[in-house]
Amino acid sequence: MKFIENGTVVNPKGFRAASVAAGIRYKDREDMAILVSEKPAYAAGTFTSNRVKAAPVLWDMHIVNDAGMAQAVVVNAGIANACTGDEGYQICAKTADAVERALSIPFEMTLLGSTGVIGMQIPADKIEKGVAAMADLLSDEPEAGHKAARAIMTTDTRPKEAAVSFEAGGKTVTIGGICKGVGMIHPDMCTMLCFLTTDCNIDRDLLQEALSEDVKETYNMISVDGDTSTNDTCLLLANGMAENPEITEKNEDYEKFCEALHAINRHFARLQAGDGEGATALLEVQVKGAAGHEEAKKLARSVVSSSLVKAMIYGHDPNWGRIMCALGYAGVDFDPYQVDLYYKSKAGEVIVAKNGITTGYSEELASKILSEPEVTVICDLKMGDGYAEAFGCDLTYDYVKINADYRS
Amino acid sequence: MKFIENGTVVNPKGFRAASVAAGIRYKDREDMAILVSEKPAYAAGTFTSNRVKAAPVLWDMHIVNDAGMAQAVVVNAGIANACTGDEGYQICAKTADAVERALSIPFEMTLLGSTGVIGMQIPADKIEKGVAAMADLLSDEPEAGHKAARAIMTTDTRPKEAAVSFEAGGKTVTIGGICKGVGMIHPDMCTMLCFLTTDCNIDRDLLQEALSEDVKETYNMISVDGDTSTNDTCLLLANGMAENPEITEKNEDYEKFCEALHAINRHFARLQAGDGEGATALLEVQVKGAAGHEEAKKLARSVVSSSLVKAMIYGHDPNWGRIMCALGYAGVDFDPYQVDLYYKSKAGEVIVAKNGITTGYSEELASKILSEPEVTVICDLKMGDGYAEAFGCDLTYDYVKINADYRS
Repeated sequence: MKFIENGTVVNPKGFRAASVAAGIRYKDREDMAILVSEKPAYAAGTFTSNRVKAAPVLWDMHIVNDAGMAQAVVVNAGIANACTGDEGYQICAKTADAVERALSIPFEMTLLGSTGVIGMQIPADKIEKGVAAMADLLSDEPEAGHKAARAIMTTDTRPKEAAVSFEAGGKTVTIGGICKGVGMIHPDMCTMLCFLTTDCNIDRDLLQEALSEDVKETYNMISVDGDTSTNDTCLLLANGMAENPEITEKNEDYEKFCEALHAINRHFARLQAGDGEGATALLEVQVKGAAGHEEAKKLARSVVSSSLVKAMIYGHDPNWGRIMCALGYAGVDFDPYQVDLYYKSKAGEVIVAKNGITTGYSEELASKILSEPEVTVICDLKMGDGYAEAFGCDLTYDYVKINADYRS
Repeated sequence: MKFIENGTVVNPKGFRAASVAAGIRYKDREDMAILVSEKPAYAAGTFTSNRVKAAPVLWDMHIVNDAGMAQAVVVNAGIANACTGDEGYQICAKTADAVERALSIPFEMTLLGSTGVIGMQIPADKIEKGVAAMADLLSDEPEAGHKAARAIMTTDTRPKEAAVSFEAGGKTVTIGGICKGVGMIHPDMCTMLCFLTTDCNIDRDLLQEALSEDVKETYNMISVDGDTSTNDTCLLLANGMAENPEITEKNEDYEKFCEALHAINRHFARLQAGDGEGATALLEVQVKGAAGHEEAKKLARSVVSSSLVKAMIYGHDPNWGRIMCALGYAGVDFDPYQVDLYYKSKAGEVIVAKNGITTGYSEELASKILSEPEVTVICDLKMGDGYAEAFGCDLTYDYVKINADYRS
């Protein structure tokens, strides 16, 4: 399994992309993208757990859970199409209708993704014109994927895209994707928006299982601000065009597929966390020695979600009591006086607490370690084999600024 | 039931207070306080749910749950005495020992409270000298209470104290208190530190029940930053010196006591929330029409805890979709398209969403309403009779600044 240099969503065979400036809410930038598979593809997806689901989420859930097939994905940035009632759902239908007219893709084979302000309606005419314009621009050149990755951004500071490949049955199988964060990101959801493509030949149910399981260990382990969006969507389309022997059971090829899928999802989870709104640093929390995996996950998420820990990372302040505190309210039983805590980054590694008590570490070194753009906090509970990692970022003035001024 | 003007912790009969600059960590300010009851008092308490409990919390839990009697409370600011192991617990014993020597109060009758940095040891000599100094300063003058309220502050911007009184069996009964917030405040705990005194003559078990029940509706409905402290403690001492007929059952006098207790606790909860770290506004969330009370509480806490809602209040931006979103991930079943949302403050009231859809309200008016120092968000689910309120504050640059620089 390897990452492809400058890889993107169109690397898998048979996938094309396009993007356009539809003028939905942003000015002077592309704000709409489309992904198209040459052949109808198996479609797997995971969606927000929020009780308030945006119209495109309801639309996609219906398709993924019912036929489980799709050929196009249309995405817009600027307006989320959430809290928009029947009128919002009609926009979804109009979008699929526009795709059918422009590309002869059946109405029920178009998936959707929206991100932006909640409570506003998307202008239908702009969506329809956008789809028509993109139909003429579809391309399998990497540049088309790069532009699509940019078109779906909101407060992201950089596009997020990648592709990985591996060998199965003598064929090269590729998984590509684009995604965006970066606010309203929190455990118990998929990510904000993530669109994965693959040419892998794999059974529909195994595709969904592989995605559902991996999302729990990657996107669901991200926390930027504790809010779970109404729009979170992760879609994975598999068109089988790699012509590998179909994966119909959990054999070696399935393991390879899962490994590659995990690699790209973990990569995206780290990109999203590190580009959290206002973030200056990626915070990775590793919990080991927990009683079990689920316990480790709860503990890791509690630490990575703590406002006080996040502010401390921003301040490069090795105030480790806040980590102990966040472990303590995770709802998991453990002995505080058995916990070891470490800080780690490119600048080095330091143990700050041993058996729950300060080690008398060098504050200067610890602060230097916390000053790097990627910081890891390691919590060793020394109880069992449970291990988990979670991804987040620091809490900064800019997070507040971005979210206090979002609509202005 | 009425609030007493400039009321404080020494208003109930038989209580005295003192404070001193013990130099534990702060310079040039008082950082230690003591409360003493003339007679041994029944002691009720509620404590942090954090698995990592500070030494004074463990100390107090033992006393409250065992004998349930106390005569003194010693509090320090600056160091939390959390994550301090056996050495930290020994500091508790030394403090109680110092009180016994100075005031002849039995060792096991002294309760403790600490707040500040986690992981550092409190210098024992400073605590011992502080207790000895305070023993000579004890006073039942209001000024002694006012100074004690200041001495227990950390990042609080103002002291928090009050007293209420009511008539029972022809006698005037008084409840007084001092408390502090204001970071690490979140549901599932008592407040940071809250010390209540009363001269009410009431059965020990009823005293605990009244406190435990009311804390759920007041301090546990505050959220400042989602972190649950290792030190949260709420203590209530009742010395019976009002000489009202002892309250031994849930009669009319008990109801009056509960009403007065709720009034002072709600008052403190609002003070703490409004003085949240960096806050410029108190945010009160009222949920009505929920299926039941517990559902209403979950929903209210979800909204008041949302970083995006909090940032929106700071920006005076009536972006109500964030409120719908926070209701949606509360883990409670409801119909989004039946929800009405209102903003209310001294500047007026406006309905921004009706049945889950925008009302086309005036953005200017809504923004003006959100610019006041006390803002109420009302969510009407129109399902049942469930009502609850929660207390929080906006999320500001200063919150980040305070917590990134806390120890410097």
